[in-house]
Amino acid sequence: MDDHQTNTSADIRHRRTSSVTRATDITISEKKIRKKQPDQPVHCPKDSLLSSSSGYTNYRGLLNLCFIILVLSNVRVALENVIKYGILVDPIQWVLLVYNMPNTRPIFLLLFGSALFPLMSFILERFLLVKRLISNTSGAICSTVIIFSLLSLPPLILHSGKCNPVGASICCLVYSIVSLKLASYHMVNYWCRIDRSRCHRRHNSCDLNRSHPILNGTRMENGSNVPMNHSETESTGNGIHPTPLVTYPNNLTIFDLVYFMYAPTLCYELNFPRADRIRKRFLTKRILELVYIFSQLDLGLIQQWMVPTIQNSLEPFREMSFSIMLERLLKLAVPNHLIWIIFFYLFFHSFMNVLAELLRFSDREFYRDWWNSESVNYFWQNWNIPVHRWCVRHVYIPLLSQDRIHFNRFTASTAVFLLSAFFHEYLVSVPLNMFRLWAFTGMIMQLPLSFFVAKYLNSQTANIAVWISLILGQPLCILMYYHDYYVIHIVQNG
Amino acid sequence: MDDHQTNTSADIRHRRTSSVTRATDITISEKKIRKKQPDQPVHCPKDSLLSSSSGYTNYRGLLNLCFIILVLSNVRVALENVIKYGILVDPIQWVLLVYNMPNTRPIFLLLFGSALFPLMSFILERFLLVKRLISNTSGAICSTVIIFSLLSLPPLILHSGKCNPVGASICCLVYSIVSLKLASYHMVNYWCRIDRSRCHRRHNSCDLNRSHPILNGTRMENGSNVPMNHSETESTGNGIHPTPLVTYPNNLTIFDLVYFMYAPTLCYELNFPRADRIRKRFLTKRILELVYIFSQLDLGLIQQWMVPTIQNSLEPFREMSFSIMLERLLKLAVPNHLIWIIFFYLFFHSFMNVLAELLRFSDREFYRDWWNSESVNYFWQNWNIPVHRWCVRHVYIPLLSQDRIHFNRFTASTAVFLLSAFFHEYLVSVPLNMFRLWAFTGMIMQLPLSFFVAKYLNSQTANIAVWISLILGQPLCILMYYHDYYVIHIVQNG
Repeated sequence: MDDHQTNTSADIRHRRTSSVTRATDITISEKKIRKKQPDQPVHCPKDSLLSSSSGYTNYRGLLNLCFIILVLSNVRVALENVIKYGILVDPIQWVLLVYNMPNTRPIFLLLFGSALFPLMSFILERFLLVKRLISNTSGAICSTVIIFSLLSLPPLILHSGKCNPVGASICCLVYSIVSLKLASYHMVNYWCRIDRSRCHRRHNSCDLNRSHPILNGTRMENGSNVPMNHSETESTGNGIHPTPLVTYPNNLTIFDLVYFMYAPTLCYELNFPRADRIRKRFLTKRILELVYIFSQLDLGLIQQWMVPTIQNSLEPFREMSFSIMLERLLKLAVPNHLIWIIFFYLFFHSFMNVLAELLRFSDREFYRDWWNSESVNYFWQNWNIPVHRWCVRHVYIPLLSQDRIHFNRFTASTAVFLLSAFFHEYLVSVPLNMFRLWAFTGMIMQLPLSFFVAKYLNSQTANIAVWISLILGQPLCILMYYHDYYVIHIVQNG
Repeated sequence: MDDHQTNTSADIRHRRTSSVTRATDITISEKKIRKKQPDQPVHCPKDSLLSSSSGYTNYRGLLNLCFIILVLSNVRVALENVIKYGILVDPIQWVLLVYNMPNTRPIFLLLFGSALFPLMSFILERFLLVKRLISNTSGAICSTVIIFSLLSLPPLILHSGKCNPVGASICCLVYSIVSLKLASYHMVNYWCRIDRSRCHRRHNSCDLNRSHPILNGTRMENGSNVPMNHSETESTGNGIHPTPLVTYPNNLTIFDLVYFMYAPTLCYELNFPRADRIRKRFLTKRILELVYIFSQLDLGLIQQWMVPTIQNSLEPFREMSFSIMLERLLKLAVPNHLIWIIFFYLFFHSFMNVLAELLRFSDREFYRDWWNSESVNYFWQNWNIPVHRWCVRHVYIPLLSQDRIHFNRFTASTAVFLLSAFFHEYLVSVPLNMFRLWAFTGMIMQLPLSFFVAKYLNSQTANIAVWISLILGQPLCILMYYHDYYVIHIVQNG
């Protein structure tokens, strides 16, 4: 802010004399004499702290100020909300919503019906293995048919009757998860089958590393389908005794498939890492978070803060008044983001850890440090590890390694983004029974955003850009869909 | 959040075997073999990052999130304000306000009249020195009379006519400053007089330190009142040539008093530290800040944000509806604090530095790092250095060193707080023509707050407590006064 006062005065002093020491001596004695004057002087030459020449930089108190203003201004908005709408939080309402839901039959039918598809997959795999009735190619076609029919069932059934969007969303989520899991199941078993037939061709002399004498103690060379005691062979890897690994085709048991269907992962493998025991204290804490603390907080925030704000946003969005739309969007952004963060913790930490603890599944890496993302890609690679792993293992790497069409890293990752965009759209369009492509567009827009962030921003501003795209992108999509839903269901019908 | 998973599994491992090395070897080879299985496994045992057992602590991205939410939520409120009220910022309105101000005559009379009191003080000091017509005691009485009549003039004149509160505030501020300056002027001259008579009693053989042969080159032993060329003797202390110090009574010139009256300090001394030159670039920047940037910003914020909010707060404050009152208070707190911080910079940095630069006054310590305050006392001792210095030099130390009434540090600082509370009340009550004690109470409440903060809070929470008392205390007082003013002037008059 200031000129270089210190330097300048030092220069002047230097120019006036050759002996700096003498000058300093005199200044000190001058100060002493000044101090002893009867007028008790209190002033001495000094720069203001906020002048750049003072060299002062300690503003950590201002960080506290920012934090206080953040809390105060949001407490104020929350208070304004309570004054305007009263207390809307009511856990009973959610129970009644589920209980009184109209047209629940298709939803429950779908949920129970989803169990049939893993069974079909299992039978298909057994057929592929033992009876040798089906070739690998027709096996691939059959599994593709299973997965496509799985994914097309919810749109077909939900399209016919008017279902509650919340129930329908849960259905679509379950069907998406099952389809991804079964795709992984078939692919892994296919890899094992290929490997096994290669071994057979080499006169039953497989690579030593894969048929370790100790580890594969229970391996059956003749490929018979005698089911093994799964839990016996898959004890934890934490003990010092070498664990006998399950090999193909001993994994083809109903128990193994059921374990995989409930395990908090989308990637199938024959030997999941397992823990020694269930930690009861850990489990209790996660269940408390799941059932009582964060879920209630999230549901309460939705009732109290999101619903009234969204309802208030419809008028300006119908009239497309830009400044009011922006204000509504910003008003929605803060609670929406808070709810999303709580939901993230609830689902990816509490829920998945409960599931994993109950199944003694010891790989708990369900997310990485996406909050420090310094690029859009880093965020998408780290916030949802089960999906990311699935995409890399079953789409990205297979695309790069196949020969027919030439894929480079960029086209392969674009394909992953397109698939991800499809599922985002699927999870929103099907339950709402509207095909609007807002979610798809939102995901596709990540590609130019990613390019822009990587090219023009440094690590700090990139992190800020990622946060802003999250904070503003989500409520924008929500408002778009809700606006269209409202126009179709409420304006047109009444 | 979690139990000590890592420790527990390590314990189990240790209990099972005496050779830890063997266990590790096997685990590593097991991992290698797992990796080479045909199912391409991707899972390995790992804790979730948010589990305490993961040892992960890097959340710096969340700091960015807080900052973004802070900006977004306040941009939203600003936008809401513009949508609701339109653009209210209008610099012309301020000019018209001053131009069309009713009853400006008493204000201008007071402002010009304030120049008479320093003149009276000067004449009194000259009488005390030369003519020896007045004793020190009657001198003290006379100066007290001057200061009290100075302070009582604005209430007397402003009480009679209905003046604009803004003009009246400026008057009261000027009169307060002049009274503090004159008190300092009289006290310092009294100290010098005492010292001089002590020297005379010692047969004109003063302490050598005080009559340094070089430094006091112009010192006159006989105490004659020949006026000196002030600007000649007071050249800067930055050069290497020893500066001749002005000694009593050579300071008793009109020029010296005028310099002191305009200098950005309340403490008089005979030899103010002076700079060599006026830094033109520095001066230009500060003047730009003062006239164009921050003052316009501050005035605009008041018009756009404060005035409508205060006006909207009156209804709930009249009805004393607590939750709405709290909401209004919080709504007022953020813009009020912003305006206060800008005003702080404007007055204590820009304005005082302009004044100092023009007068080549080189002590620019007008504030210290109060934003890092870790106690209430630290804040009051550092945010307004001119007043703090005056209080310490002319109230606190004299109270501690006098013998008649026993003052300890606590009672002396309480006395300082009482005086400060009096001036706060004076600066608000007199312009508004209402005596309500809200400002006085606000200042007095600092004492128990200070005690509480010092006793119960650590440095971080203490800093937060100081900020909160600032952020909420000020708008509370403003609302209290405005409410009363509104009830008296607008409700009662129709």
